[in-house]
Amino acid sequence: MSLTTLTPERLRAGIEQFYARHLHLLDDGDAEAWAETFTEDGVFALPGRPEPTRGRAALAEGARRAHAERRGSGETHRHWHGMTDISPRDDGTVHVRCYALVVATPRGGDPRLHRSCVCEDVLVPVGSGWQVRSRRVTRDGF
Amino acid sequence: MSLTTLTPERLRAGIEQFYARHLHLLDDGDAEAWAETFTEDGVFALPGRPEPTRGRAALAEGARRAHAERRGSGETHRHWHGMTDISPRDDGTVHVRCYALVVATPRGGDPRLHRSCVCEDVLVPVGSGWQVRSRRVTRDGF
Amino acid sequence: MSLTTLTPERLRAGIEQFYARHLHLLDDGDAEAWAETFTEDGVFALPGRPEPTRGRAALAEGARRAHAERRGSGETHRHWHGMTDISPRDDGTVHVRCYALVVATPRGGDPRLHRSCVCEDVLVPVGSGWQVRSRRVTRDGF
Repeated sequence: MSLTTLTPERLRAGIEQFYARHLHLLDDGDAEAWAETFTEDGVFALPGRPEPTRGRAALAEGARRAHAERRGSGETHRHWHGMTDISPRDDGTVHVRCYALVVATPRGGDPRLHRSCVCEDVLVPVGSGWQVRSRRVTRDGF
Repeated sequence: MSLTTLTPERLRAGIEQFYARHLHLLDDGDAEAWAETFTEDGVFALPGRPEPTRGRAALAEGARRAHAERRGSGETHRHWHGMTDISPRDDGTVHVRCYALVVATPRGGDPRLHRSCVCEDVLVPVGSGWQVRSRRVTRDGF
Repeated sequence: MSLTTLTPERLRAGIEQFYARHLHLLDDGDAEAWAETFTEDGVFALPGRPEPTRGRAALAEGARRAHAERRGSGETHRHWHGMTDISPRDDGTVHVRCYALVVATPRGGDPRLHRSCVCEDVLVPVGSGWQVRSRRVTRDGF
């Protein structure tokens, strides 16, 4: 896939589909499949961590641990991306800046907003789809 | 409309437009027009109901009753779909798995998250648009 | 740009990209750049105001003041548009009816839903993008 042949509408449709599947995998606790939506050496910088998480094994481990904690606490988390500002770059990557919400629902209770964040991704084309090469999330309120 | 001629971007644009109008009709209380966005024999399985709702007359009746209850209580509900994972199938249907939020605002008050759900639809092409043939909603926290 | 040459998927992709950037500019406090996403004589009717705001200078002033107030109170606001119902008109404009949420996060605290609204825009094509010619926002609960 070459970005020079992608229309804006195909680019957006592909990226929206990518994020949908990416976030379903995360929230469903399918940590290995989620980690494979990053490049092999993908980097994820989360707020409040001294070092970013690097590579699929570490990404999967982090997602698995977070999902186990949620199961333990009886909470369901849903990640929403939105207001997706898409910027193709000359080097073939696509830079995305979007908003992210985490909706948390306790067992038997009502949902609440758990987090409001800004997510900045560098996506790279792989086959007919995308992978995250680097992600930086900043949390509102901090 | 044949799915074999639909690009991914046209497919997604049509489905996003379909859900936007579908949910405006629901929240505006236009129950008959909303029911017509289902197939004649459309099925809607909601959590906590022993049987799914079947057919447009029953769907419209349910939507009308729910809207009347909200008017009675002075609340406005807004349904949001998002993280729309779209899977075209060989039989010409499109399977969608998306997240759904219901935002409720009482008269004179602040909005709150009322529901966080997962919605699984089977859509069928009708004319230049779509209809829901079956829907299954599962509510987070249950 | 002529709407007669725009496919539905290109129209939607362009408008989704427009709103993403438009709302990032607003929430980042880039009031002048945000005002330039309206036409020179753009009109914005907000609930609870006797008169709509008219023209870029007044729009920028309003956005600047609102952002300064939020900085003063230590809150971050994020505007989300969604359920975007897009209707191209014969006169070359595009009418949009969408839902809008404002998510507010206090410094050191958890996010909450601040507003749930319906936003009705008339967009006009300018160059390869869009501008808002008129906007009417109605707030749920009032």
